[in-house]
Amino acid sequence: MRWGTQAGQGVTPALLTDFILMADSKALPALDEDPVAVEALLRDVFGIVVEEAIRKGTNASEKVCEWKEPEELKQLLDLELRRCGESREQILERCRAVIRYSVKTGHPRFFNQLFSGMDPHALAGRIITESLNTSPYTYEIAPVFVLMEEEVLKQLRALVGWDSGDGVFCPGGSISNMYAVNLARYQRYPDCKQRGLRALPPLALFSSEECHYSIKKGAAFLGLGTDSVRVVKADESGRMIPEDLERQISLAEAEGAVPFLVSATSGTTVLGAFDPLDAIANVCQRHGLWLHVDAAWGGSVLLSRTHRHLLDGIQRVDSVAWNPHKLLTAGLQCSALLLRDTTNLLKRCHGSQASYLFQQDKFYDVALDTGDKVVQCGRRVDCLKLWLMWKAQGGQGLERRVDRAFALARYLVEEIKKREGFELVMEPEFVNVCFWFVPPSLRGKQESPDYMERLSKVAPVLKERMVKEGSMMIGYQPRGGQGNFFRMVVANPAQTRADMDFLLSELERLGQDL
Amino acid sequence: MRWGTQAGQGVTPALLTDFILMADSKALPALDEDPVAVEALLRDVFGIVVEEAIRKGTNASEKVCEWKEPEELKQLLDLELRRCGESREQILERCRAVIRYSVKTGHPRFFNQLFSGMDPHALAGRIITESLNTSPYTYEIAPVFVLMEEEVLKQLRALVGWDSGDGVFCPGGSISNMYAVNLARYQRYPDCKQRGLRALPPLALFSSEECHYSIKKGAAFLGLGTDSVRVVKADESGRMIPEDLERQISLAEAEGAVPFLVSATSGTTVLGAFDPLDAIANVCQRHGLWLHVDAAWGGSVLLSRTHRHLLDGIQRVDSVAWNPHKLLTAGLQCSALLLRDTTNLLKRCHGSQASYLFQQDKFYDVALDTGDKVVQCGRRVDCLKLWLMWKAQGGQGLERRVDRAFALARYLVEEIKKREGFELVMEPEFVNVCFWFVPPSLRGKQESPDYMERLSKVAPVLKERMVKEGSMMIGYQPRGGQGNFFRMVVANPAQTRADMDFLLSELERLGQDL
Repeated sequence: MRWGTQAGQGVTPALLTDFILMADSKALPALDEDPVAVEALLRDVFGIVVEEAIRKGTNASEKVCEWKEPEELKQLLDLELRRCGESREQILERCRAVIRYSVKTGHPRFFNQLFSGMDPHALAGRIITESLNTSPYTYEIAPVFVLMEEEVLKQLRALVGWDSGDGVFCPGGSISNMYAVNLARYQRYPDCKQRGLRALPPLALFSSEECHYSIKKGAAFLGLGTDSVRVVKADESGRMIPEDLERQISLAEAEGAVPFLVSATSGTTVLGAFDPLDAIANVCQRHGLWLHVDAAWGGSVLLSRTHRHLLDGIQRVDSVAWNPHKLLTAGLQCSALLLRDTTNLLKRCHGSQASYLFQQDKFYDVALDTGDKVVQCGRRVDCLKLWLMWKAQGGQGLERRVDRAFALARYLVEEIKKREGFELVMEPEFVNVCFWFVPPSLRGKQESPDYMERLSKVAPVLKERMVKEGSMMIGYQPRGGQGNFFRMVVANPAQTRADMDFLLSELERLGQDL
Repeated sequence: MRWGTQAGQGVTPALLTDFILMADSKALPALDEDPVAVEALLRDVFGIVVEEAIRKGTNASEKVCEWKEPEELKQLLDLELRRCGESREQILERCRAVIRYSVKTGHPRFFNQLFSGMDPHALAGRIITESLNTSPYTYEIAPVFVLMEEEVLKQLRALVGWDSGDGVFCPGGSISNMYAVNLARYQRYPDCKQRGLRALPPLALFSSEECHYSIKKGAAFLGLGTDSVRVVKADESGRMIPEDLERQISLAEAEGAVPFLVSATSGTTVLGAFDPLDAIANVCQRHGLWLHVDAAWGGSVLLSRTHRHLLDGIQRVDSVAWNPHKLLTAGLQCSALLLRDTTNLLKRCHGSQASYLFQQDKFYDVALDTGDKVVQCGRRVDCLKLWLMWKAQGGQGLERRVDRAFALARYLVEEIKKREGFELVMEPEFVNVCFWFVPPSLRGKQESPDYMERLSKVAPVLKERMVKEGSMMIGYQPRGGQGNFFRMVVANPAQTRADMDFLLSELERLGQDL
């Protein structure tokens, strides 16, 4: 029973406070519901989650989304927050509605993002994380997670090829990338922390034209400015060209800037390309530059003995951003920043020794208080979901998932080659399969001057149709002079060849009149 | 049945991939467990969560923590990640162990942090959030949460006193504070985004000596350097002194720096002090400075008609950081950054128009794609837990919680005054109650020259004792010349006067021999 429902009507706030103060000192009622009611509520909600989000949400014969126009959806959800609370039945109905109108990212036909799927162990880890609601900044309040984070990071580093180093979980790969940039500039110019960028020469960092947009966002946020990012050319497959990197470094130096970091990408966002790390590491070594790898997407390939050659040379880099919430389906967010550094650079760069949190006279080893490694204060526990899934699957099971995604993507590529009306943008090396669907009216018209313009309009129309039907979701985008093409992402471990076949057949069905 | 358990022993990775490719195209087995096993696992885990984390974790007669030395805990948890997966029984045992050795932040005797307690509706919202696993960057994949975030931010802004504006949820208050600094400098010098800080004059920002450490961390991260933070004096209660702010501004200008932002605090971390916003707003207005309020801790007081006067003047500020995961127990993390701005400053400052995510040829209003407001790419859904709790409690219920926390803190203060051996650091204005426990051997020795030094050693000893017994957890810290004192935080809505009494009696018991 909520205390809020039985008192307070017509009582002024001041009176209410007095009332509370005057109440019997031992029996002042807690506002929380009673334990039995709490458990019953949570069991009901969990039942709804299992039924709607898990059972239906991962069932291929259910819709992947239930499209509503924003105005209609606002009405359906009755979003407004009011002064009066609602009954338990109303709350349960709201839980159902939230799930009903949300996109099912665990659905086998959700191909829209670099994350998808639903791993039951990872989800279990997330539910436990939420129930424990702590922050891994001190061993004191997060003993299990401080130690667990250390172990998980150690294993991820081992896959990179490092038997020592440092690391931390960040709220997303973009912030991991920013950390790398901040660490690199601090390592070169420790003065920067205190005196700022105005005390430094103009800096330059380098990334390819195919890199993630967070590199430029990060440069702006960190005060370097987007101009400090020098764009290196990529080849036709989307891989950074080391010779052009060399050229850009010389150019920046000639303009009076000081190169300090190269951000390579292992698994680019659109094409899934892997920059040649060994060749780039050679360039960085020659010029004394920090080499960061944004492996947010492709890092998980390190688990596969068959495919990890795509990241050859990664053991030579200085930092790695790797998001197990993508290909490993750990759940948003699970983003590790890994460092080769063994000099406590993270803590020196980000630390501020807050005396109310990181007391030095604690009764345990305060090196276990890792909170000063980050620029956040409170932060979420992001290790348990990955740890529990890894314990359940074993490295072996995770490796098979990665291998299987490659195999399914390869299957899809071969199917695309067989079917009329489908055209690959390029032969993929990863699980991003980029292709055009060429509708009947455009087939054989490749030479027509407005072909690409007309082809570019196909994907948005098909996207609208699939979303409104709820049959599947797949992303599209233009790239350079190439008009809109679809980017298929094979990541959900529940996907089968049948889902690949469905993708193609559904596009044919949706686009047959175009 | 996990596929990983039945194949792959002795099979080389290449062979395995071939095997997968050669398998029947329709029946390629998914690696996921079958749906029935998935549901059974999740139900079992949920049962453990209810039993261990919720029932025992919030029961005052259970321990708040089960202290283990790090090396022993590592053994108990068997943290190592191996190549082979584990059985379902082993996984369930691991779930139990993780909860057993974690600190119970929802326990009524967890007084250690600015967050505590367990709201069942907020927890329900978090479980649903995890099961839906999406990112609110586009309406396309998060229609419910894009609209819900808008509504929740609107309500929070209304409590600030704004009927328009902007905002976003950030991964913690520290990052909200950084956003404010970045927005303020961008508004004044839009060039900064492209050209960086070197194109700008030296900047100065101002905050009090009692402000949160994220202000300095943020200045370093954003490239301004910690020297750019000018420290304003606080009065005895921890409130910023507006006259000293005025003085620091003049000083900075005299030194050639350009003042651009003042960060006031509503609810300081240690003392719970509220800076005088109206007086500070006057100073900012005179000098044309952006006024940010770090109300991460104190923002929730706006819900109380009785106590919101502590934030008088907040409607005049430019930005507010407010963490409902603290006093409102929404769960880590729920951190809103609110802006008075109506010129789309957030998107202009942080946007980068990634063409693969924020396509402009979508079939719906792309203004609903809010992802370009943030410096992250994927980010978590942080609105549902607050929305669901608010729906259940109503603004009224939340107001009562806040009022009740004030009343309980007041009760504790009066009890401290009554008991021998307890001394208040100051008369609190919020729910932080800072006090010393003076053990028998130090009573009446206030005039002794080593009194403060000896008193300062008391809190760490008591902390060790309480943690090792698991009876309660409360934080301590020094401040200026004052030795270690306890900081009691009254935030958990399940706390009663009995818990306040327990706190004091337990300190007496633990410290009777000192």
